[in-house]
Amino acid sequence: MARVVVDVMLKPEILDPQGQAVQRALPRLGFAGIADVRQGKRFELELEGPVDDAALAQINTMAETFLANTVIEDFTVRVEEVADRGEAK
Amino acid sequence: MARVVVDVMLKPEILDPQGQAVQRALPRLGFAGIADVRQGKRFELELEGPVDDAALAQINTMAETFLANTVIEDFTVRVEEVADRGEAK
Repeated sequence: MARVVVDVMLKPEILDPQGQAVQRALPRLGFAGIADVRQGKRFELELEGPVDDAALAQINTMAETFLANTVIEDFTVRVEEVADRGEAK
Repeated sequence: MARVVVDVMLKPEILDPQGQAVQRALPRLGFAGIADVRQGKRFELELEGPVDDAALAQINTMAETFLANTVIEDFTVRVEEVADRGEAK
């Protein structure tokens, strides 16, 4: 089964309080050298059919109208090899 | 500045009510052919220094102890070319 990943992040000019909270906590926890943290959402969609242009166009529309709020968020759509799952720790 | 991305997803055996809610809404909204949806978190970390083994080891520890709850979540750490930002829509 094919997997398509949609990443949704706040636009760079939009304040990200979640990311800021993480960034501020890091030095206290002993982690240095991180200049900025942004937190967003990741959607993993398992497709029933093949990942063709029609499927990707549909997912793009879905991301634009439903998964992301394009007033304040950017999104990217990409196909992921399911074998990548092996990277998970 | 170098960017490292940490993706945090619920383990496959853990129920994902957010993903299920998205999946159930899709047919109502006219999107067919999506077998499963999982929703997770994406952290974008901007590093002050270079992305060397020490930095990646530190980020791995950070992800394991702080960004992810490894009892119920898997995480992946990967370096992203900042030029990728051009993909954003």
